[in-house]
Amino acid sequence: MALSKPAATSADVGLVGLAVMGQNLVLNMADHGFKVAVYNRTTATTERFVADNPPAVFGDTGGGLVPAADLRDFVASLKRPRRIVILVKAGGPTDAVIDSLVPLLDKGDVVVDGGNALFTDTMRREKALGEKGLLFVGSGVSGGEEGARFGPSLMPGGRREAWALLEPIWVACAAKVDAKTGKPIEGARPGKPVQGGVPCTTYIGPGGAGHYVKMVHNGIEYADMQLICESYDILRHAKGLSPEAISKVMREWNQGDLDSFLIEISADVLQQRDPVTGAPFVDVVLDAAGQKGTGKWTSVNALDLGVPTGSIAEAVFARCISALKDERVRASAVLKGPTAPSPLEISVDAVRDALYCSKLCAYAQGFALYTAASKEYGWNLDLGAIAQIFRGGCIIRARFLQKITEAYQRQPALENLLLDPYFAAQVEKAQANWRSVVAKAALDGVPAPAFSSALSYFDSYRRKTLPANLLQAQRDYFGAHTYERVDRPRGEFFHVDWPDSKRPELKASELGMSR
Amino acid sequence: MALSKPAATSADVGLVGLAVMGQNLVLNMADHGFKVAVYNRTTATTERFVADNPPAVFGDTGGGLVPAADLRDFVASLKRPRRIVILVKAGGPTDAVIDSLVPLLDKGDVVVDGGNALFTDTMRREKALGEKGLLFVGSGVSGGEEGARFGPSLMPGGRREAWALLEPIWVACAAKVDAKTGKPIEGARPGKPVQGGVPCTTYIGPGGAGHYVKMVHNGIEYADMQLICESYDILRHAKGLSPEAISKVMREWNQGDLDSFLIEISADVLQQRDPVTGAPFVDVVLDAAGQKGTGKWTSVNALDLGVPTGSIAEAVFARCISALKDERVRASAVLKGPTAPSPLEISVDAVRDALYCSKLCAYAQGFALYTAASKEYGWNLDLGAIAQIFRGGCIIRARFLQKITEAYQRQPALENLLLDPYFAAQVEKAQANWRSVVAKAALDGVPAPAFSSALSYFDSYRRKTLPANLLQAQRDYFGAHTYERVDRPRGEFFHVDWPDSKRPELKASELGMSR
Repeated sequence: MALSKPAATSADVGLVGLAVMGQNLVLNMADHGFKVAVYNRTTATTERFVADNPPAVFGDTGGGLVPAADLRDFVASLKRPRRIVILVKAGGPTDAVIDSLVPLLDKGDVVVDGGNALFTDTMRREKALGEKGLLFVGSGVSGGEEGARFGPSLMPGGRREAWALLEPIWVACAAKVDAKTGKPIEGARPGKPVQGGVPCTTYIGPGGAGHYVKMVHNGIEYADMQLICESYDILRHAKGLSPEAISKVMREWNQGDLDSFLIEISADVLQQRDPVTGAPFVDVVLDAAGQKGTGKWTSVNALDLGVPTGSIAEAVFARCISALKDERVRASAVLKGPTAPSPLEISVDAVRDALYCSKLCAYAQGFALYTAASKEYGWNLDLGAIAQIFRGGCIIRARFLQKITEAYQRQPALENLLLDPYFAAQVEKAQANWRSVVAKAALDGVPAPAFSSALSYFDSYRRKTLPANLLQAQRDYFGAHTYERVDRPRGEFFHVDWPDSKRPELKASELGMSR
Repeated sequence: MALSKPAATSADVGLVGLAVMGQNLVLNMADHGFKVAVYNRTTATTERFVADNPPAVFGDTGGGLVPAADLRDFVASLKRPRRIVILVKAGGPTDAVIDSLVPLLDKGDVVVDGGNALFTDTMRREKALGEKGLLFVGSGVSGGEEGARFGPSLMPGGRREAWALLEPIWVACAAKVDAKTGKPIEGARPGKPVQGGVPCTTYIGPGGAGHYVKMVHNGIEYADMQLICESYDILRHAKGLSPEAISKVMREWNQGDLDSFLIEISADVLQQRDPVTGAPFVDVVLDAAGQKGTGKWTSVNALDLGVPTGSIAEAVFARCISALKDERVRASAVLKGPTAPSPLEISVDAVRDALYCSKLCAYAQGFALYTAASKEYGWNLDLGAIAQIFRGGCIIRARFLQKITEAYQRQPALENLLLDPYFAAQVEKAQANWRSVVAKAALDGVPAPAFSSALSYFDSYRRKTLPANLLQAQRDYFGAHTYERVDRPRGEFFHVDWPDSKRPELKASELGMSR
């Protein structure tokens, strides 16, 4: 089917980039009654997409597709002010699409980048388009292919007037959760979107705020996935459970505080057998994890802002070390672990508690990063609102997010999730189990980088005095970096003219009490 | 004393920037018989420096100072080709000095940046100066003020012809180690440098290689310091030792495998009492560690190159969390730890073994990063030579570095330090103790982020199969990211069209065995 020229100003919204995510988001919009102009660099893809989705698909929703073979026709087919969503590869491809669109647009049109852009790129693009009188929204779109099709979590950042234009579409397309329980409303089918509920989207903030929130969401997701993997590994290697047995354990967990999309799909994966070999499916999958960079971006930004997010960074490094498959196989022949399991016994419930507490720390780290970024970039982020829109649609959706939402409802300026009374009580109850699992992993030689990092975070955060006093004294010793004193106001710096180790005692004069 | 115009072409080398590091490096060069032209933006500093160091100081070494009040006079006072060392603040100030120097220089002159520059800045500067026919060396200078004065470890990067000009000076000024034992030769005094020995400097590689090696050296230093702090913390809070008792323990450790500058100064710090309050000195130092960014740079670069360096990153994050002093004090009132110590007993020797093994992992991570960077940037780094020049002068100097040097002498292409037979045997012997210390810290609530991260690194690295198989299956489930199979060649990607959890079994056709 060759495409004819579309009617002018007939479409409510346009989308460029018909890969799976783009196609699914188009179908989602059309299901909600929008006429969606579609354009793809390769016209054959557009033709196939339109042929696969004839008007009947959208029934009486009022929605439909307005295909164009030419970018100029695509733009002309849009009602004004135009709303154009770009869903192409982040980086160069996104810039290329923006560059070819801009000359065709008019003041007040809005361009929405729904890709996984680095937030500093979004800042740059928003500024550049703003100077041309165009509006720009960088929006996180989370939930994978399924989310895009039936309701993603959407995190838009940009100017408020840009959001005003996008809002009706984003609110319609977003995942919905139950107003009371915060649980995702499921059951959407093609042409039959869910009705009612609270949409998983809200205005995030100016500039790159939306893509930033999506980036850290992904960082948290890295940690969450790694923690589940460590749970599985410990259950298998320290408790001796089979993948199928662990699948059953996870289905149970999914009935309680850990109820989440990631636990659910982990249970699905672990219950499968490979039809080719008959082995547990997980055992035929190569243990070399890929990554697309958002966990790394989160860690780099956390380092830049000086926010401790060890559990996220350890999750990124765990993927890196998994990718060294051949090297690990060689190393496994040289480096031996413990010769026998330790007598320390742990229960399956202990692993559940370790997962719960570690997960809480990963979220506490991610949300502390939001607080720091909000200050650094002047975004005025609403952490409660962010937790709310994570409740449905996105990969980290979980019952847990309802509790985080409630924590921020109780205290909108909550300094750290660990300090919320509900979570503090949960950890108090579960910490002995958590500690025993980390200890068991260490003793038995099961790597638990994210579990241990989370526990160290908790134990550091609740410590009035850390051994950084020794560290700061070391720095003063070899680098004259100075130190502050616990008995003097902050901002007064002292330096010791350190004696060599042959001289036994410091004299008061050597303390350099003024500087 | 006002400065008169210096004689033309009378100086062997020039140095710009007379802060403490600059002054000390000048005195070091003069001690070795070089006539050193000196320039500082504030002339009064130059005048004071020269007044404080009259010719008699350098006795019959032949060295001396050639002060200049004006940059033009400073340049004119240098023999050609000119050799000019810059020791000012990294970043903008370094660029400013280079910019004012360049118009005054002639083709073939060499500019040496001895500051803590980011290696990518060094790459940029080396290229820019090269285009003008000037040579540029970015050199790491490690060892703090003492090192600069009596022998630093020097890590120069740039073109070989630039190094040829700098080499006589760098070789003379560098720390020296005993050719047989690799131990630093000590005892240098003003006007009396040490004689003989192997210099702690060598040509590192082109472009930014020198500053890169210094950056990762600092990253390792962050980890090393943090590990010592964790040892102290555990000895104090899990073993109940006083700072003085821990000082004695560290002096003992300093006689064995852990013999190092950092252990020595830690023992010095811990033996001190505060003359003002009578308390252990460490207890009056505020536990909020500062940082200057090199540990962060190392971690960011490791994330960029995908090299797992969790122990270094955890050390950076530990400083970040220490800096949240007020927040921690508030948190300590809310979040409680274990109510009683666990019955697990650990010995002082166990802590020593934990420190040793963890330290080895931090070095293994840093040196693996060198390997990756060498490949990425085309530097052809000689890891054995790098270990050699770390043996003296720098902050991480240690008996340990001699063992690393020997490991690379045995196998120049060693994939990971952990795989060296000597180190593999050491860890095999010490690992039970290491594990018990990490377990004890977890059970008793003593934060041990770098200890645990190092252990997880070891346990991950030696594991043939990691739970990343589950992770990759999760990624395939929600994002269609595909997976590889253990029974098929690498590079063949598969995708499962995942059933929902209501359907119990995958069919072979759903495994998507081709893609």
